Amino acid sequence: MEKKNIRDLHRMSVADFRASEKSPLVVVLDNVRSLNNIGSIFRTCDGFAVGRVILCGITATPPSAEIHKTALGAEMSMDWAYYPSTLDAVKALHDEGYTVCALEQVHGSVPLPGFISEKRRKYAVVVGHEVHGVSQEVVDAADICLEIPQFGTKHSLNVAVSAALAVYQLTFGQQGE
Amino acid sequence: MEKKNIRDLHRMSVADFRASEKSPLVVVLDNVRSLNNIGSIFRTCDGFAVGRVILCGITATPPSAEIHKTALGAEMSMDWAYYPSTLDAVKALHDEGYTVCALEQVHGSVPLPGFISEKRRKYAVVVGHEVHGVSQEVVDAADICLEIPQFGTKHSLNVAVSAALAVYQLTFGQQGE
Repeated sequence: MEKKNIRDLHRMSVADFRASEKSPLVVVLDNVRSLNNIGSIFRTCDGFAVGRVILCGITATPPSAEIHKTALGAEMSMDWAYYPSTLDAVKALHDEGYTVCALEQVHGSVPLPGFISEKRRKYAVVVGHEVHGVSQEVVDAADICLEIPQFGTKHSLNVAVSAALAVYQLTFGQQGE
Repeated sequence: MEKKNIRDLHRMSVADFRASEKSPLVVVLDNVRSLNNIGSIFRTCDGFAVGRVILCGITATPPSAEIHKTALGAEMSMDWAYYPSTLDAVKALHDEGYTVCALEQVHGSVPLPGFISEKRRKYAVVVGHEVHGVSQEVVDAADICLEIPQFGTKHSLNVAVSAALAVYQLTFGQQGE
């Protein structure tokens, strides 16, 4: 099978992408420390046409040369906002009618694989700090906790990897009409 | 909901993990350049109890301080092998009865979301170089090409992110008996 060339991929220009209809999905970064991870999450969100990225607390914001290194320009194509407090971001999302999902290892969580989102609902997924994860108060404020089952010696995936798995599941694991 | 503590997670020791039954899944790195990406892929493979990682061509091998930074020790728990030629690795996998899937944007690809692996089959997934992807000769030698649909301005996910999505799909998108 022949590899697709740059024309075959039908990549959108930044202007067309910004004007295009997006997924209603929102990705919230609760105090993500690493600029590489922030940039990588921007790149993933561009790939899956996520509606918005919300950067909270210590999470750095563009413009940043370090974020650009892994975002590869996706920090220009993506809509983003900053909230000093993740809880305030969650409150604002609730006011907008979002179902807020924390991606965290908690008692009573719902396994991410097999999670089927409802087409008429708007979802936000919160990912957390590289060491501490999503803060307990944000977990408490969320409507659902989604957990990625893990079977190894670490039980800790990279946050940019975890965010991508959640975006993938919420994008493609969707109910019909 | 309360966050799980370290005991709740039931993390395996490296010795127990090495002795445990793994997924038959194999992840092949076709000339992956970045040590960060290699380490991140090790960490993901540990999380999903992947059977083996095969490092090919210019892909660096452990021990490496740079790989360790993102693998966080998963390069010790995971089985891995090195082949100078990715094609030779694919041939060896075919000889062992593996179905080899290249993760690449090609004409005639199968979309990754919704791909249901057969429980009785052993799969290997090949991910490629950060810029050039999986080489054409390896695409030609593969049994299936899996493609991650993308809707943004880049059509290029980070290779550690792509590998994680493929491992996730092949782990959880599985037929029953």
